[in-house]
Amino acid sequence: MSDTTVLVLDAPSPAPPPRLGSLTGRARILHADADTLAAQLPHADVLLVWDFLSDAVRLAWPGEGPRPRWVHTASAGVDRLMCPELAESDTLVTNARGVFDQPIAEYVAALVLAMAKDLPRTLQLQGERTWQHRETQRVARTRACVVGSGPIGHAIVRMLKGLGIITALVGRSARGGVHGPDELDRLMARADWVVCAAPLTDDTRGMFDERRFGMMQPSARFINIGRGALVVEDDLAAALSKRWIAGAALDVFEHEPLPADSPLWTAPGLIVSPHMSGDTVGWRDELGAQFVELYEEWAAGRPLSNVVDKKRGYVPGN
Amino acid sequence: MSDTTVLVLDAPSPAPPPRLGSLTGRARILHADADTLAAQLPHADVLLVWDFLSDAVRLAWPGEGPRPRWVHTASAGVDRLMCPELAESDTLVTNARGVFDQPIAEYVAALVLAMAKDLPRTLQLQGERTWQHRETQRVARTRACVVGSGPIGHAIVRMLKGLGIITALVGRSARGGVHGPDELDRLMARADWVVCAAPLTDDTRGMFDERRFGMMQPSARFINIGRGALVVEDDLAAALSKRWIAGAALDVFEHEPLPADSPLWTAPGLIVSPHMSGDTVGWRDELGAQFVELYEEWAAGRPLSNVVDKKRGYVPGN
Repeated sequence: MSDTTVLVLDAPSPAPPPRLGSLTGRARILHADADTLAAQLPHADVLLVWDFLSDAVRLAWPGEGPRPRWVHTASAGVDRLMCPELAESDTLVTNARGVFDQPIAEYVAALVLAMAKDLPRTLQLQGERTWQHRETQRVARTRACVVGSGPIGHAIVRMLKGLGIITALVGRSARGGVHGPDELDRLMARADWVVCAAPLTDDTRGMFDERRFGMMQPSARFINIGRGALVVEDDLAAALSKRWIAGAALDVFEHEPLPADSPLWTAPGLIVSPHMSGDTVGWRDELGAQFVELYEEWAAGRPLSNVVDKKRGYVPGN
Repeated sequence: MSDTTVLVLDAPSPAPPPRLGSLTGRARILHADADTLAAQLPHADVLLVWDFLSDAVRLAWPGEGPRPRWVHTASAGVDRLMCPELAESDTLVTNARGVFDQPIAEYVAALVLAMAKDLPRTLQLQGERTWQHRETQRVARTRACVVGSGPIGHAIVRMLKGLGIITALVGRSARGGVHGPDELDRLMARADWVVCAAPLTDDTRGMFDERRFGMMQPSARFINIGRGALVVEDDLAAALSKRWIAGAALDVFEHEPLPADSPLWTAPGLIVSPHMSGDTVGWRDELGAQFVELYEEWAAGRPLSNVVDKKRGYVPGN
């Protein structure tokens, strides 16, 4: 038996991550939930944050005692995880970079096409047994502005280009194929589709606000598959009500699950989905396998991929 | 003033086809509706079937007197138009080949992605203010069987390939990139997506029936953007009820508009849309412009493109 202890912050359900069985004999696997995490943290070499929607790590980390040398989160974003004490520590943080890219790109394509082809209205009319022919929009030669130049943003751009959409990608800094933040407003103002795939950091929080919705075209649609707090939700609801933009789709929200009394459920032209854009059949299995692969590298003392820049809040590069 | 008379079978609304103004001084334009068509046919050199959903031509054509030398229909299908007397005459028939290819391909992509990502259920749950995370399907590496190897079928194949879908195209005869009809059952039986884009002819009428739905995978989805009568609608409804297949989308129906009391409106897993897959903003303008271009060729005595093989019921080749 190895003397390495892997602590797993379990999700409420379905509980244990798959694939960890392959670590049997090589590591001791302990499980924690939000209530027991603080007490167990000092005994772990590695922390696997399987319940990536939980705030438990951010709350427990600043406590007393030794801390894991490596934290892996089964998510692309690390915003729920990070606290100053973890950011300033020597602990390595890795994320699930790569697993969600293609599924999320497909999901964005689904939303773009559904809005262009007026599918929500079609389903509503079907419910009323009403035959009502409409003219819909072509997506070819429309313009998209994708915000967030990580692998998810890049995958979205590739997918939308495949549909014949003219795309611009905006990141934290200008480089090959990526526009810098100073070009965001100009590109967004002429886009038919504004897609948010940015990480949530101090710089990006609330970046889609009244001012930016006011700059978009009245025919534009806004899609957020990043993190809810990138958007000032009240400003989006107002922009939709005032017809500043033609529609929107949110897969992520400041408070999840979205409370039943939220006005967003019925905002005009808004599609609400429950934080599932990247979660295709087999995703949990892929996340488990990815952790095992990283574990092999870590145990062998080799450098890890997917290492998050803890100050920036994402994996830099590309 | 030219001595050529162009008779336009108008649609009930919006009435006159755009762009015909550019024929002013070069042709006399007369208008007919279903009631007056028979009386006016003998006076026309050219018939433009703008109301392509009408049976009026098929009913009026066999009457007495001279007949137009050229009939153009503002549709891809000629099934509503054709009668034996027209098929055996010297009259040239042309169609709107090309105008609908890309719009319909986008529409099919929208349906495929909406079904893969469970979008109808998402909208339903939104209406109930219910947050219910689900795992959805990836479309990359799934298999599609597209039936109908005209330009619409080819455009659908290109679009689905762009989504990473493995596609097979089935036509009336095997040739480069197209499978023959003897391979249809085999290809369909392993497809995740069966897309019908075939012309309606004596050979294809009712081709999607109980036997074929019974061969499809339980996880398969069926999409028809061709003509309603390609499908035995009762057999499809039964296949959906018995869960022989996972879902379907029909944009075309044996009787259009679909009667309010049709059981198809509420068939489980069926998306009903009102024959609009190709009708994107500007489509009528494109159809008008296409007729004018063909008219220039015809008036100059040059050979026309888009000439329908009247016995087969479509434009051969490709």
